[in-house]
Amino acid sequence: MRATILHAPGDIRVEEWADPALERPTDAIVRVVAGCVCGSDLWPYRGANEVPEPRTIGHEAIGVVEAIGPDVARVRVGDFVIVPFDHCCGRCVHCLAGQTQGCVELAMTGSGQAELTRVTNADATCFVLDEAPAPEQQATVLALSDVLPTGYHAAVSAGVVPGSTAVVVGDGAVGLCGVLSAKRLGAERIIALSRNPERQRIATDFGATDLVAERGDDAVEAVRELTDGVGADAVLECVGTEQSMLTAFGAARPGATVGFVGVPHGVQIPWPTAFRGNIGLRGGMAPVVRYLPELVPAVLAGDLDASAVFDLELPLDDAAEAYRAMDERRAVKVLLRP
Amino acid sequence: MRATILHAPGDIRVEEWADPALERPTDAIVRVVAGCVCGSDLWPYRGANEVPEPRTIGHEAIGVVEAIGPDVARVRVGDFVIVPFDHCCGRCVHCLAGQTQGCVELAMTGSGQAELTRVTNADATCFVLDEAPAPEQQATVLALSDVLPTGYHAAVSAGVVPGSTAVVVGDGAVGLCGVLSAKRLGAERIIALSRNPERQRIATDFGATDLVAERGDDAVEAVRELTDGVGADAVLECVGTEQSMLTAFGAARPGATVGFVGVPHGVQIPWPTAFRGNIGLRGGMAPVVRYLPELVPAVLAGDLDASAVFDLELPLDDAAEAYRAMDERRAVKVLLRP
Repeated sequence: MRATILHAPGDIRVEEWADPALERPTDAIVRVVAGCVCGSDLWPYRGANEVPEPRTIGHEAIGVVEAIGPDVARVRVGDFVIVPFDHCCGRCVHCLAGQTQGCVELAMTGSGQAELTRVTNADATCFVLDEAPAPEQQATVLALSDVLPTGYHAAVSAGVVPGSTAVVVGDGAVGLCGVLSAKRLGAERIIALSRNPERQRIATDFGATDLVAERGDDAVEAVRELTDGVGADAVLECVGTEQSMLTAFGAARPGATVGFVGVPHGVQIPWPTAFRGNIGLRGGMAPVVRYLPELVPAVLAGDLDASAVFDLELPLDDAAEAYRAMDERRAVKVLLRP
Repeated sequence: MRATILHAPGDIRVEEWADPALERPTDAIVRVVAGCVCGSDLWPYRGANEVPEPRTIGHEAIGVVEAIGPDVARVRVGDFVIVPFDHCCGRCVHCLAGQTQGCVELAMTGSGQAELTRVTNADATCFVLDEAPAPEQQATVLALSDVLPTGYHAAVSAGVVPGSTAVVVGDGAVGLCGVLSAKRLGAERIIALSRNPERQRIATDFGATDLVAERGDDAVEAVRELTDGVGADAVLECVGTEQSMLTAFGAARPGATVGFVGVPHGVQIPWPTAFRGNIGLRGGMAPVVRYLPELVPAVLAGDLDASAVFDLELPLDDAAEAYRAMDERRAVKVLLRP
């Protein structure tokens, strides 16, 4: 197959690679119709993570089931499926408690930026659509494999409820999906932190009622002013840096929760603020399989559309350019078509 | 008045000191009937915090109202009161949301280990008892000024619910009150981490069903074995060190919450565990005023008795010995009588 291969930081190429095989009887192989680049793919691309040997990359995909193992009973060859980035068994104690990201057999999509990708525990993991989405609907459906449920997880974890005031730290694709999700959960006021006019526009389209262009302490001060000195009821932390975490805690009112979904890299909690304010922290990897039964119908009905985060679409062969565009912040998120 | 004065790390003496005065019209002065030493008092005693000049110390007290300011309407001279360590106004947006520890006028009891102490916003802060407790009842009532509501806050923050499995990290007075509180909240299984036979005995009396003497990774392993590999539904972190936080996260099952009440000193969150496990963190300073209407009746009825944490009782004049006994872990918690 043609696949995006990360050779070393900054060195990413589309080339021929071995097709993924059915390794376990519960596996399926999916022919990718659309994949995309995630902000977290930029970590190894930028050298923050080790790249010991060349490997496939990409964990977001939708496509058509090409092959199934002998123990796959629900998913059939030819089905159009959403592939959640975090695969789960659906039977263990953690899956049954809704903690599908804590599954004892947790695995990840490993070649979403390629022609084919392997899905473990396919019956529990794949979300089968009744029919293939039209090409113009594929972006909104693709968002369900990670970025939209991840933004939704930030909002759920932060405890957004109808009438609440939410702050969203981070104007990347996940942060923008956080805005959209806070809106869906009924937030009355959504304060988005962004200084980029294009992202501000998307945030506003997604439901942001206020935009704060300041950063750090000035952003905290701006949120305090917008909330009459009280702070936000819920804060979505969608970056994962020390600075974004400090801003998130600073913007929270006493008793509020910071919902985090960015993978924290060397982040220290501002303990005095958390301690006196009783500001909680909750989140992490999104349990995508848990959320899809709730989110897919809304997306298919057109009530929830995150496709605007894909502001660039390229053929798979141009994956290297997709990474460059996102690394240089020329694009929010790039959709790739094999 | 006679008061315990911290002069420098390790140098604590009981001596004559200026009586506290009514500084604001909403203040009251309370004549202390019983006070005690808190684990957090040991931080400055041990030199972990600065002691720029001699000062009074102690934030736990019960006693009789000696004087009130002109704007105090509910509390009267002669009332027997519990003095929550964190004073609050009862009227601000945070108090009205139950976040009394986040009060805009937050203040702390400053001379609980003395003959007299000042209480700010006395009407909102003081819990008035119908009658003075008998001497043998004073220890159980004194626990309501901080240590019991703080243990309770750990259990509430951790999300202990009927039937759940709770782990309590820390066998100090707060940890032991955490055990008692988890029991009160209906935990079916309470795993207490302790290697001290005397504290193990109190933990068992308070409701612990299992004792784990191991520490660190071995303690985590022991909890996993006791819970069939699942981990605990709720974890109470009652120490505040890096090691105790790591143990707490390690013992939590996916989706669980670590309820923390120890003031963290230089603690780093184990992010990969928190991220993949979706393990939340919540807690901090206990909103004592919020909890007292619920806890006081249970204590007065004898249904909730934390007095066993006071395993040493001394006259106020022996406060220095009280600190030594706690510093050397010869005593769990020392009650002081002026």
